[in-house]
Amino acid sequence: MSGTSGTAAGDTAVIAVDLGGSSMKGAVVSETGRTLATETRVTPQVEVVDALVGLVRHLSDLAAEHGHPVAAAGIVTPGMVDEATGTVLYASNLDWRDVPLLDMLRARLDFPVAVGHDVRAAGLAEQLLGAARGSRDFVLVPIGTGVAAALVTGGHPITGALGAGGEFGHIPVVPGGELCPCGQRGCFEVYASGGGLARRYAARCGVDRSSREIVARLGSDALADVVWADAISVLAQGLAILTLLVDPRVIVIGGGFAQAGETLLAPARERLAGLLAWRDRPEVVQSQLGGEAGRIGAAILAFRAAGRGALVDDWSVASVPA
Amino acid sequence: MSGTSGTAAGDTAVIAVDLGGSSMKGAVVSETGRTLATETRVTPQVEVVDALVGLVRHLSDLAAEHGHPVAAAGIVTPGMVDEATGTVLYASNLDWRDVPLLDMLRARLDFPVAVGHDVRAAGLAEQLLGAARGSRDFVLVPIGTGVAAALVTGGHPITGALGAGGEFGHIPVVPGGELCPCGQRGCFEVYASGGGLARRYAARCGVDRSSREIVARLGSDALADVVWADAISVLAQGLAILTLLVDPRVIVIGGGFAQAGETLLAPARERLAGLLAWRDRPEVVQSQLGGEAGRIGAAILAFRAAGRGALVDDWSVASVPA
Repeated sequence: MSGTSGTAAGDTAVIAVDLGGSSMKGAVVSETGRTLATETRVTPQVEVVDALVGLVRHLSDLAAEHGHPVAAAGIVTPGMVDEATGTVLYASNLDWRDVPLLDMLRARLDFPVAVGHDVRAAGLAEQLLGAARGSRDFVLVPIGTGVAAALVTGGHPITGALGAGGEFGHIPVVPGGELCPCGQRGCFEVYASGGGLARRYAARCGVDRSSREIVARLGSDALADVVWADAISVLAQGLAILTLLVDPRVIVIGGGFAQAGETLLAPARERLAGLLAWRDRPEVVQSQLGGEAGRIGAAILAFRAAGRGALVDDWSVASVPA
Repeated sequence: MSGTSGTAAGDTAVIAVDLGGSSMKGAVVSETGRTLATETRVTPQVEVVDALVGLVRHLSDLAAEHGHPVAAAGIVTPGMVDEATGTVLYASNLDWRDVPLLDMLRARLDFPVAVGHDVRAAGLAEQLLGAARGSRDFVLVPIGTGVAAALVTGGHPITGALGAGGEFGHIPVVPGGELCPCGQRGCFEVYASGGGLARRYAARCGVDRSSREIVARLGSDALADVVWADAISVLAQGLAILTLLVDPRVIVIGGGFAQAGETLLAPARERLAGLLAWRDRPEVVQSQLGGEAGRIGAAILAFRAAGRGALVDDWSVASVPA
């Protein structure tokens, strides 16, 4: 109960949840940035807020059992999020429209709550603790099944008029190109995402393979080589667009796609440099926090909601193991 | 000398210059926002700073002759501008690299000087006085011979790590597309700019026509119709990219191209809406300040440099005639 060491009972903790369309990734995070416990649950089809509150209460009980008083909760969600009011204006994979999530959670939880955007929160985590540490101008591009981006300029994330900034996955990059599940054609993520890679491969040979399997077949499977080359090409085009518009010092690639490491990054860097006429390319690096970035960002928002954001300044990457 | 009316002798004035590759557009602007005098000179091939200082001194003498003490000068330039230090890192059409313009001007002028970026200053003017009045999230896209953009998010312009944000004209929108004078292929301004329209028309029929002439021939010249349709299509694609990335409330189209008015704006709005899957399109409107926006922005920067930026709050569009 002394509170002197990083994980000692008595340390204040927060509850952090990265709410997604398929899973709710929750954690108890101590004031030194240590993840004390995690729990991931399937996101239900209906009554998502009930399930979310249940997960937060469970983690809160767990923290209390171990002697950690809970100071706040931070919840991050996908979609168009108005962070000033904590309203999710639209989230396709939760089937939400105008959900006043912050108000709903405040009514049911007896500690402060913060609501944020999953990718912008991940960007905040990479900025404070990860691959963009110390940078005021960077972009985080998590490439998983789909693609999003946190665009940070002058130290602040680009939120936009409707909380919808950073929809990088759906920028039109190939006029009249292949159909995207969103209904448009030629979106970035049609070509340069895990889902896109798998769909394009299957459409050409009738065999379902994951993007990881496709990457593993590079050099021995001509079709894998083709869809991968297209992905690199479109990735470089998209990064050139980001570079020219927001001029980041560093581009951080995250998500499952980034696990390809230099197989992805080395050709992406080279192609990006080739697409820039009069300027050097920014650094292109792999995310350091990976899939944990959203949850860590949620914990940071929670400590800020508790008026203890300064604690985060003492966190280090080592203290927030994935 | 009473200083009671907008243009009375005795009112403090500033010198504003919009420095471009072909011309230096200077003005004396009073503290009520009135343009008291203008002078435009050809930008010389060499010794540009000497010529710039000459123009500022001439306008300063003119102001003094009419009884207006000069409080400051504001100079805006194209290129990559580090506004914190007033250094032009790179400006292709001035053939400048790492020019410490602010320091050079301070050494030779005996009043405060501000150095800014031409398009971001134009955005500031549209935000305070023009078509984006009151908006914290908007983009200004001046489409002339070439294309640039001022991207404003949360009330602040996106400057970027190297002062190079907003290079909208050179984002790659058509993979492997037509060659741009910048050396890349498929840049936005290859298709959707005055220069691009004229070049594409001439390349197809061997006849040189200005973009204004091409627009005048719409409906009676099949080739004009074709290059115009391509321009609208690429414009909509580019605006969709801006919308998805920075989520502006309003898109302001400026430059000579905007003079086509609804011939440009009506189809651009419709095509833009068609490229957005799950969200409404932002407003798309014509610039109110036109080619004067950069010079007005320079005057605003000058009043700020003189510690009198608050004066600008009382300006109205009517007080800053083009």
